[in-house]
Parts: sequence; C-alpha cells; structure tokens
Amino acid sequence: MADGSDRPDSLDRLNARLLDFARERDWEPFHSPKNLAMALAGEAGELLEHFQWLTEAQSAALDDEKRRRVAHELADILIYLIRISERLGVDLIAAAEEKIRINERRYPADKVRGDARRAEEYGD
Amino acid sequence: MADGSDRPDSLDRLNARLLDFARERDWEPFHSPKNLAMALAGEAGELLEHFQWLTEAQSAALDDEKRRRVAHELADILIYLIRISERLGVDLIAAAEEKIRINERRYPADKVRGDARRAEEYGD
Amino acid sequence: MADGSDRPDSLDRLNARLLDFARERDWEPFHSPKNLAMALAGEAGELLEHFQWLTEAQSAALDDEKRRRVAHELADILIYLIRISERLGVDLIAAAEEKIRINERRYPADKVRGDARRAEEYGD
Amino acid sequence: MADGSDRPDSLDRLNARLLDFARERDWEPFHSPKNLAMALAGEAGELLEHFQWLTEAQSAALDDEKRRRVAHELADILIYLIRISERLGVDLIAAAEEKIRINERRYPADKVRGDARRAEEYGD
Repeated sequence: MADGSDRPDSLDRLNARLLDFARERDWEPFHSPKNLAMALAGEAGELLEHFQWLTEAQSAALDDEKRRRVAHELADILIYLIRISERLGVDLIAAAEEKIRINERRYPADKVRGDARRAEEYGD
Repeated sequence: MADGSDRPDSLDRLNARLLDFARERDWEPFHSPKNLAMALAGEAGELLEHFQWLTEAQSAALDDEKRRRVAHELADILIYLIRISERLGVDLIAAAEEKIRINERRYPADKVRGDARRAEEYGD
Repeated sequence: MADGSDRPDSLDRLNARLLDFARERDWEPFHSPKNLAMALAGEAGELLEHFQWLTEAQSAALDDEKRRRVAHELADILIYLIRISERLGVDLIAAAEEKIRINERRYPADKVRGDARRAEEYGD
Repeated sequence: MADGSDRPDSLDRLNARLLDFARERDWEPFHSPKNLAMALAGEAGELLEHFQWLTEAQSAALDDEKRRRVAHELADILIYLIRISERLGVDLIAAAEEKIRINERRYPADKVRGDARRAEEYGD
C-alpha cells in the first residue's frame, strides 16, 4: 500500500480470506473463471428474484429482514467477483476506475442529462 | 477510518465517485434498487457470453485483449454492486464478511473437501 | 401426432431445424447442457438490458423497432431452451404442463389473489 | 390453425392456460414485461446453479432426479417466455423462425464450421 497504512484494503483482505476458504476445502479445482462466472450470474438471478414483483418505490424501502437478505445476495456477488478477479489476475479496483473514466467520456453529462435511456445512443 | 490512514478504502472512494457521476447526469431517479439489480444482472449476462463456448481450461488462459474485455465486465458488475449498496444503505464489506462467516459454518471443511457439489446438501 | 394432423408441432419443427443448424456447423461439441445454459442466461441478460431503465408502463408500450429487438431476444432464449431440452432429452411442453399443475396446487387462487409477493410464502 | 387440425399448437394451449392462471389470481397487474423479464432471468440463474460445478460431460449425463429438477427450471423459463410474449403481442414461433434465418446468413456454415467462438467475428 502506497498510503503508509499497515492495514490492507478491504478487497485485499477479503481476497486473502476467500483464497484460504477455497484452499481449505480443496475447491480451487472447481473455481475456473468459467464456473465462477456462472456462480456469479446465478447469484445475480437470486438478487433479481427479491425485486421482480416490487415497484421501484418498494424496492427502495425494504423492511429490515428483506434488506438483510438482499445484503447477503450482494455479498455473494462480491465474493464471486473477487474470486474470479483473483483467478484471472485482474485488479478489480483499477478496472473499475478505468471503466468510470471511459464512461465519463462516453456519456457526456450535458448530452445524457436526465435520460439514462439516451445512454444507449452513446454506449456500445 | 480506524487505521490511522487518511486514505479512504477503495470501495468508499469508488462509491463517492459513482454518486457524483450519477448526480452530474441526473441519473439518480433511474437508479432504483430494482433497476440497478437488472443492470447488474445484465452485466453478469455479458460476462457469461465471454466464457460460454470456452472450456474451463481456456477460461483460465485468456489472451490479453480478452482478459481486458472481461476485466471491464467485472468492473461494470462492481460498479452496479456499489451503486445498489449505496441506495439500500448496505455496507458491502461488512455483508461479505458476515456471509463468509456463515459459509464457514455451513460448509465445514472436513465434510465438503474436494466436492463443491456436496455443498448443496449443506447450503440452502 | 395423436391429433390426426400431419403437421408437427411448432416446437418439434424448430427443434429439428436447430439440430440441422448445429450439425451443419459442427457446433454440437460446443452444445453441452452447461454451455447452453450459459448461452441462455446470457440472452436473458440482454433481454433485461432492454427494460432496465424503463418504467413498467413503458415496458408495456414499446415502439415497433424496440419491440422487434425484444422479439429477437425472446427468440434467442427459445432457441437455447429448445437446444438444451434436446440435449437432455426433456419434453419441454410436458415439463411446462407439469409445472403449471404444481403451481396450481402451490399457489391457491383464493390465498394469493392480488398479491404475487405472497406467492413466496407458498413457493420454495 | 391452417393445417386443418382442431388441436391448437402446444404453445397456444400453454399461453391460454397461463393467461387463465394469472387472471384467476389477479396477477396480471404484476406481469409487466419488465417484471416478467426479471422473473425469466431469475429462473435462468437457477438453471445455471444446477450446472455451475459440473464438467461439461457431467452436465450431459444427469441422473433422473437432477434431470427432473432441471426440466422444471426449463419449464419455468418457457412459462415466463410465453407470458412476456403474450404481453408484448410477440409471435414467439415466428420470431424464432426469423432469428434462425438471420443466423443462417450471419454464420455461414463453411466459415464457422467447428468453431463456435469464431461466430463472434460474424455476429453482433
């Protein structure tokens, strides 16, 4: 870490812990990027199921029990995201920063303001 | 930050930046948890498409161009994961840590070693 | 066909045509159920992307161009659904009829009327 | 039906039955195309979960119990596919036939033979 802190970044700590978790169970052979991508998408499907019959307003006002269950789905997605990045040697934070820079150029604020759908015209 | 560092955690920095990005474009009204869950699952679908005709071994040995494209899909997923967590007031790192603790109890290393499929018998 | 018609059912005709399509291209080796499930989920992700920033009302009032693009995504999903059923020897229509019977018992009309969310309490 | 048969096509029969099912439960208001797309993608996620830790060979050799569970996931996907098509006024069979014609032009057998990955170069 270049910031002089002894404490590693949260994602780095999670990554180390998840690697231990997989190794202790000999699950690494199952964790090909292909399989992890499927597992991640499966969790994304579970996330959808929480919201599919809710209105947008209801989705923003979950009760505590529902919010906790959704938080666990988000956690599952993050877990597989970290695992697949580790297997591919991808720096997830750097990739996100690069992608945000691309999006800033692709979707100029003055052109897409107030209309997320217009982003399609500018995106790929 | 409790670690004495002035530098916020990577996810916190990304969260702040993504919030600015959405606000500058007046895209917050589109960013209901329901819609963000759809966007996240859409990106998970794009991730799958990179791997669907590859063998597991090929998925672990991407060339640089393909790896860069996959890294951008992973970045898109992280971006929506951060956005939806922000909208729901979920602490993503704390949720992941809690979920790992649950998984450690649910999948005892000595019972599921070497067989990820057996995890089904213990999971939900 | 037991109905005295010489014309095979639509799904049977599509199935035969898709089998030819795969064989002419030597694509059958790629069409494992695992890979086809990924391809289907990838197309489901593309379907989501058409709707993610639309309100529910807008999603029911697509213009012709958008409706045609959505129709093609639905077609892609049906295509992979037929292919995976063929590879697994599953009779898709019979499976759907069986699932509807299960749902009729699981979600009694008088208990879940007007509240699709309550279906959760009765479903798995 | 133009074929002189009194028996409607399988998809037409399922469509009529699913429409009744939704109406008897007053679930039609929940069945916006947006929501149905989410439900379909959620079921596609469940399909993935059956295959994610299997090899391709294992995915083609399911035991009876697993095959029955997978058949039910495929059924769920077909059910939502029929429902969303009904809501959008899309003729699913005609759309699939049109999409196959497009694919036949897009992926010429002599150019993509034996390499599904090369399809990317020709597809969109």
